[in-house]
Amino acid sequence: MAKKVIVIGSGAAGMTAASTAKSADPTCEVTVFTQDEDIAYSPCAIPWGIEGKSKWTDIVMHTPEYYEKERGIKVYTKTTVESVDDASKTVTADGKAYTYDSLIIATGGKVFIPPIEGTDLKNVFVVRTIRGGKDIQEASKDAKHIVIGGAGVIGLELAVSFRNMGKDVTVIEMMDQVIPRIADKDMADIMQKHLEDMGVRFIMKAPIQAVKGDGEVSAVCAAGQEYPCDVMIFATGVRANLDIPKALGFDVGQLGAAIVAPTLQPYKRGRLVPDIYLAGDLVQCESAIMSGATMSQLGSTAVKQGTIAGFNAVSAKKRLFGPVASPWVSQIGDLQISGTGLSKGLASWYGVDVVEGKAEGLTRARYHPGGKKLIVKVLADKTSHRIIGGQIIAGEEATGRIDWLTAAAINGMTAEDFLVRSENAYCPPTSMVKDVVISAVEDLCRNLE
Amino acid sequence: MAKKVIVIGSGAAGMTAASTAKSADPTCEVTVFTQDEDIAYSPCAIPWGIEGKSKWTDIVMHTPEYYEKERGIKVYTKTTVESVDDASKTVTADGKAYTYDSLIIATGGKVFIPPIEGTDLKNVFVVRTIRGGKDIQEASKDAKHIVIGGAGVIGLELAVSFRNMGKDVTVIEMMDQVIPRIADKDMADIMQKHLEDMGVRFIMKAPIQAVKGDGEVSAVCAAGQEYPCDVMIFATGVRANLDIPKALGFDVGQLGAAIVAPTLQPYKRGRLVPDIYLAGDLVQCESAIMSGATMSQLGSTAVKQGTIAGFNAVSAKKRLFGPVASPWVSQIGDLQISGTGLSKGLASWYGVDVVEGKAEGLTRARYHPGGKKLIVKVLADKTSHRIIGGQIIAGEEATGRIDWLTAAAINGMTAEDFLVRSENAYCPPTSMVKDVVISAVEDLCRNLE
Repeated sequence: MAKKVIVIGSGAAGMTAASTAKSADPTCEVTVFTQDEDIAYSPCAIPWGIEGKSKWTDIVMHTPEYYEKERGIKVYTKTTVESVDDASKTVTADGKAYTYDSLIIATGGKVFIPPIEGTDLKNVFVVRTIRGGKDIQEASKDAKHIVIGGAGVIGLELAVSFRNMGKDVTVIEMMDQVIPRIADKDMADIMQKHLEDMGVRFIMKAPIQAVKGDGEVSAVCAAGQEYPCDVMIFATGVRANLDIPKALGFDVGQLGAAIVAPTLQPYKRGRLVPDIYLAGDLVQCESAIMSGATMSQLGSTAVKQGTIAGFNAVSAKKRLFGPVASPWVSQIGDLQISGTGLSKGLASWYGVDVVEGKAEGLTRARYHPGGKKLIVKVLADKTSHRIIGGQIIAGEEATGRIDWLTAAAINGMTAEDFLVRSENAYCPPTSMVKDVVISAVEDLCRNLE
Repeated sequence: MAKKVIVIGSGAAGMTAASTAKSADPTCEVTVFTQDEDIAYSPCAIPWGIEGKSKWTDIVMHTPEYYEKERGIKVYTKTTVESVDDASKTVTADGKAYTYDSLIIATGGKVFIPPIEGTDLKNVFVVRTIRGGKDIQEASKDAKHIVIGGAGVIGLELAVSFRNMGKDVTVIEMMDQVIPRIADKDMADIMQKHLEDMGVRFIMKAPIQAVKGDGEVSAVCAAGQEYPCDVMIFATGVRANLDIPKALGFDVGQLGAAIVAPTLQPYKRGRLVPDIYLAGDLVQCESAIMSGATMSQLGSTAVKQGTIAGFNAVSAKKRLFGPVASPWVSQIGDLQISGTGLSKGLASWYGVDVVEGKAEGLTRARYHPGGKKLIVKVLADKTSHRIIGGQIIAGEEATGRIDWLTAAAINGMTAEDFLVRSENAYCPPTSMVKDVVISAVEDLCRNLE
């Protein structure tokens, strides 16, 4: 009999899981339930959608009709799952019961909005769905003053998009640096300067106190000041959406997300739950750098988990989800910033003493036209000399380099080992003869002595 | 007393060694002898110099006067070292004897020219020195037909440069594919097609039989045909220049290059030679992929070895040169091709059975403007599933991705391990949410089953 797979959630994790299950076992019946009206898109694309650089119709990879016709996957949009019964293996959605053999829960996260007045005013938004993106675009048309709450990468990408649209942009951030937590202050300050040069105003060390307005937003209060505002966007991070896992009594970890085994199965009081798999922003991960829990709410992580959850939902042989270093990258104006593993801030959270190495150079040979600035920082654990993270700012080609550093870190290379055994490909149009990554590790080794 | 360091050779290895020695021990006296008239440049830049994309004065990083004044390094250009006496620790150059405490031999390689008639005719060149590059540029001014012997990356880069200059270009290659030895035929054929689309003519499986002409070259004979030729360039690979190591009785390996310890010291009948270090194209390396000898005649390898030789020449504590995977990259027209570790050809040379995985995609999210084609192939050892190499063709960003694959290969990751533990950084303008490298390894895992 055909295996019945139900997926709850239609983001990167959910739709990847659905497609993977169907291709791993073409005989299975896959049904997706989602509250969203659009499916199969990357929320990371929304800043470029608002600006019009990418079209909404392109960002949404496929329609529900496409999934049904081309892949044989039934998708119920705008549909709420009311309850899950893991004893009878039943999902109830919009009042109807559906049975499953395997269930994948990929309900993602919810944008954290501070508990202050006025967040329900008109023209106050979060960045999460295509619908939300379109609403922001519409509301911004005649807006003059845009206020963004939170200077994480999505907040900064949005700031650039709005500057490109000619808006007055204010970013309000609680911490003393942009991209807090995952970037070090010296690297973050370069990005902040870059944005200030583009005309973005920053209000730092300023928790948002209130959103003001009569029916619709007119100002935002932070650190005792009031800033005029026609459109306010909260880009204040995502919390795991645990409604269903909690209702089912699944174990939740110390970081406020669901604990899973490497097969992505959840636990109930420490015991593995059969036939259920979790994927995406609601999952707590293991760190590849330190023994311990970490969050990895990235699109790339969601897709990886979705692939594994979908495969495991229909296969006797299981695939495993490994620990994460969570490499990330963001394009902010003309600069890319990327990072991997622990930042200095995260390292101090784990109690690790850090030594850093840094180097500056170019993305091409000095004499080759078109080379862009390249700044690389690599961090090592002071006691073991193990590479535990790094960050890169570059005009181009930051992504491959951070994936390279990630591979070194997850394989436990020390700084000295990296220098002995690492090599970089070279030709004048694509790198310096000694890549700046290697120069940064040379600096790191000197500083470790 | 100041330590005396002599360096023979002024290429990437030699000048890096000289600078590193001086900065590691500023009190030491560093003297460089070279037959060349220019120093401190990357021969890889010559194709772009000929085309005028890079200026010769920019390609040469520094003059001998700069080295003397700014770094306190004495450079004797156009100077031949006649002999080295390692017992009395003396170098004789242009009839004068110089003593040393440490000697670095970085005499590089010689372009292999087949033993056929006519290679001494006027307008027959090799690509090795700036002088040679300038001569080629001058001779090409009024030339119509350019013939390049050898379809390795330098030959192909030259072919593009000459097409950009409006020349009729014929590449003659002995093997049945371009970039033989280090690229697989399927990847090479994509590059050949790309060059053919640019108007480059290829004569394959055709050993060059003779260079014809009366005083200066007028035709090249290959595989029984004659091709009109105003300028002929041999880009037929480099052989280790062993004149000095052989005169000193140093051990030479099975690949025809000098055997060195990880400190880069040579051997005499298996015994380490004190106070002498070798760096660059004359050195035989250890493979990071297979236990065994390999050649790594790359600019990046020369600089790495130069750094270590220079440091070790003046330091009690020694740095080590590790085994190599020899990642490489080349920009050929609008396409980059890069590779690492073993190609299928090299693997069969070692007797390794290979399984491959391949994937195609883009360098950016599908909906983000400006994305370029990206083709990734990853090779694994059939028995151990260890990743032993890979090749990438892309419109951009091939370099970082091949460095990433290199890090995976040198750390002994299997294909399955790579899938469990590897991650890629993602944002729409710089990668797909699942990078094509990971998709290629997924394909590899399926093929290994």
